[in-house]
Amino acid sequence: MKMLNLKTLTPICALLLSASFAAWSQTPPPKPQPAPPAQTFSKELRDQLQAVRDAALTSDYAWHQLEHLTENIGPRPAGSPQAQAAAEYVAAEMRKLGLEVHLEPALVSHWIRGEEKAQLVEYPGQAPETTQRIVLATLSGSSATPAEGITADVVVVHNFDELTALGREKIAGKIVLFNVFYDERKALAGMAFEAYGEAVVYRGRGAKAAAELGAAAALIRSVGGADYRLPHTGYSVPAGIPAAALAAEDADLVEHLAAQGRVRMHLTLTPQSLPDATGYNVVADLKGSEHPEQIVVVSGHLDSWDLGRGAIDDGAGIVISMATAELLQRLHIRPRRTLRVIAWMDEENGGGGNKAYAKTHAAELSNHIAAIESDAGAGHPLGFYMKMPPAAITALQPLREILIPVGATVFRSTEHSPGSDIDPLVEAGVPGIGIIQDGRKYFDYHHTAADTLDKVDPRDLRENAAAMAVMGYALADMPEPLPR
Amino acid sequence: MKMLNLKTLTPICALLLSASFAAWSQTPPPKPQPAPPAQTFSKELRDQLQAVRDAALTSDYAWHQLEHLTENIGPRPAGSPQAQAAAEYVAAEMRKLGLEVHLEPALVSHWIRGEEKAQLVEYPGQAPETTQRIVLATLSGSSATPAEGITADVVVVHNFDELTALGREKIAGKIVLFNVFYDERKALAGMAFEAYGEAVVYRGRGAKAAAELGAAAALIRSVGGADYRLPHTGYSVPAGIPAAALAAEDADLVEHLAAQGRVRMHLTLTPQSLPDATGYNVVADLKGSEHPEQIVVVSGHLDSWDLGRGAIDDGAGIVISMATAELLQRLHIRPRRTLRVIAWMDEENGGGGNKAYAKTHAAELSNHIAAIESDAGAGHPLGFYMKMPPAAITALQPLREILIPVGATVFRSTEHSPGSDIDPLVEAGVPGIGIIQDGRKYFDYHHTAADTLDKVDPRDLRENAAAMAVMGYALADMPEPLPR
Repeated sequence: MKMLNLKTLTPICALLLSASFAAWSQTPPPKPQPAPPAQTFSKELRDQLQAVRDAALTSDYAWHQLEHLTENIGPRPAGSPQAQAAAEYVAAEMRKLGLEVHLEPALVSHWIRGEEKAQLVEYPGQAPETTQRIVLATLSGSSATPAEGITADVVVVHNFDELTALGREKIAGKIVLFNVFYDERKALAGMAFEAYGEAVVYRGRGAKAAAELGAAAALIRSVGGADYRLPHTGYSVPAGIPAAALAAEDADLVEHLAAQGRVRMHLTLTPQSLPDATGYNVVADLKGSEHPEQIVVVSGHLDSWDLGRGAIDDGAGIVISMATAELLQRLHIRPRRTLRVIAWMDEENGGGGNKAYAKTHAAELSNHIAAIESDAGAGHPLGFYMKMPPAAITALQPLREILIPVGATVFRSTEHSPGSDIDPLVEAGVPGIGIIQDGRKYFDYHHTAADTLDKVDPRDLRENAAAMAVMGYALADMPEPLPR
Repeated sequence: MKMLNLKTLTPICALLLSASFAAWSQTPPPKPQPAPPAQTFSKELRDQLQAVRDAALTSDYAWHQLEHLTENIGPRPAGSPQAQAAAEYVAAEMRKLGLEVHLEPALVSHWIRGEEKAQLVEYPGQAPETTQRIVLATLSGSSATPAEGITADVVVVHNFDELTALGREKIAGKIVLFNVFYDERKALAGMAFEAYGEAVVYRGRGAKAAAELGAAAALIRSVGGADYRLPHTGYSVPAGIPAAALAAEDADLVEHLAAQGRVRMHLTLTPQSLPDATGYNVVADLKGSEHPEQIVVVSGHLDSWDLGRGAIDDGAGIVISMATAELLQRLHIRPRRTLRVIAWMDEENGGGGNKAYAKTHAAELSNHIAAIESDAGAGHPLGFYMKMPPAAITALQPLREILIPVGATVFRSTEHSPGSDIDPLVEAGVPGIGIIQDGRKYFDYHHTAADTLDKVDPRDLRENAAAMAVMGYALADMPEPLPR
């Protein structure tokens, strides 16, 4: 997930949105949740939900799907043959289950990482005839350097104010490094998304701000908490200059050396931003028995960054959505409403998939009862973020008891869309739900080469499949649709 | 450190040595250490040791030296300009302190990493027109592939027996992957070196064993516990075939896919093994006041692998040895015997430095009272490995009380040299000592790009400096030399 659809926001908006994201953590502790209202779920529905839950907790279906997506297919950047193969694979798997499946076209980004390398070529205390290697990853908004690279002095700043204070005179022609820390301790204390939100704005619009002052290139410190010389890629606003993220250790090195004297860097980045391509959302319906026109979405995004294999971001979200359909079919449970599995395309680099869906399905959005997206990893599920009226949250309270063995019992109201692909639906008034996963380690691997299958714990994945299936099925089978 | 000087051992010897290393963990728990004998240290010596200890625990000298070595100079592979610059730097710093300094020449290895890349080009479930990138690091005994690389089927084995059982027919022309796990849980339980010892034999002689059956190349799973797509380099016996270590995630991928069907890899490694070069040990003496001919060595190795910046392996060992001299000079404490700081060259890839020292100083080895080497990182010091007669360990017992605030109170007898550079001295009968550091995370960073300054905690480093200085000074100033 990238959390902020920076492409569609002005920089100021993005900053404010991020700040209010961070403010979640600053609101006073929530009042104890109200006691569940008089039971609104029938015994039959409760029994079925328990059966779905227990089947999810003992099933390896999601795991095997994740193995295939990450290891047989591999990284799935939008516009790539792997993304296409993955869409066809998910469609075929859903057809195997008996769902009605459409591959819905969307214009998606098509970005290809090129060469990416850097060295410090001048710095205090440098040994004769030597340079120092800098480990980095190109950001998606990066322009290419000439093939032979560029060489320029490096200026280190820690926020936009410092950049502005230096001004054009000291920035023009320089390589700017935004050395903004990701607060790992915040993450370990349960505020990973707040930590991410505070730092990622520099990934989003740091290059733009530097370019406005004539910088030759913009670099950031990778947004994440690991200390294994592992750079993090991601979306950045195209700014007409090269842009990359340094491994934390390399940002440290540059900062320390620049504090002692002149630091010059040779930088080569040769990404290609190709014309938008046609990609596909997979839309797979398990038709409702009573109200097939009413739709409940369970979803994740199928595209991933290119460096890793897209396991936690967001193979996990895809396979637990697939598992919801598989569980209901295997248990021969048919909900009253249509359960729609969506594998979104191009969440990471433009949101082409969700925009196309909102357009294609504009007429039926009023019949979208709710939309769930899982895009915060595969950690133990703690509960759900819910963007919906209080009455809707109240109506879902009986689920908390059913979810106790799963862990996903915290129902937390949010002002924001809890998933970027369901954002257009939420904008149109559809209740939006995101699974709250244990995110303490999420940003250690997110958007890196280390986003691989082994980062997912099979038990956690089963719990997530259970959380998605229980919530999805309840929404699709409750006697009354969720109040909007 | 590489622990095993495989270059000088037959493969069988190396295996046995490693096995007996591992056997440390299998011996019964040691008996409670004997009560300290009647006080053998004078009050004056004890007061001085406490002064040295307390000065070390409040000094940033070692830290600042480590900053310079790792960040201003950077990686220091033997034969490189950085290694040369580092030797000259340490020599100059020791001269500044007033020591008598010699740069002693040694024939050292000269190895240069080239291009290193690999892709899976055929595997089960492969998406059309795609490959999968494999992250790896060349080992020092690797031959070069042609510039355009080689392509071959991959065979996965888990030990030498499996390799032998497959035989020439199934191995010839193939790329062999030794997928041998490093037991991270063993490491976290305090047995990191045992875990390392069990797996590193495949780094050392896996390629040799594969080459004997006609393999086209040999790969290992990186020997370490981190899961951040981070390959580990290191020494391997030259076997006439390409040899590299895969990141753990890539070893997993190959293993999983190979279990499903044919896996072909395209592999390009272009290292250069150049003729041995002249490098230098730095030998810096603080002359003894009573017995200048008697020598106590405090040491670490100055060379490092090229991927990281040589902070934990073994910048830390160097700077705490330097700190011992700095502390004594700053406190105007002159020991009876000569304290000799040695910065060894080429520990990692041939041991040229220690071999040259043993030759040059053969005549005075009988006057080497003891030799300490720190080469197991910069974690909190727990005590010392001691290769010496029981009477010698007994004579050092009074130090344990002085070391309580440092932590380094466990005096553990060992049958093996506790440091590979002091091995020739130990072979000649010199009592050998190694600092036991908290090694739980050591092999997560060891020999990787992530061996950088931030992996060292300044407090731990001060404690290590205190441990080295207290032990070094005690050995140099005890009324009687340590019994041999």
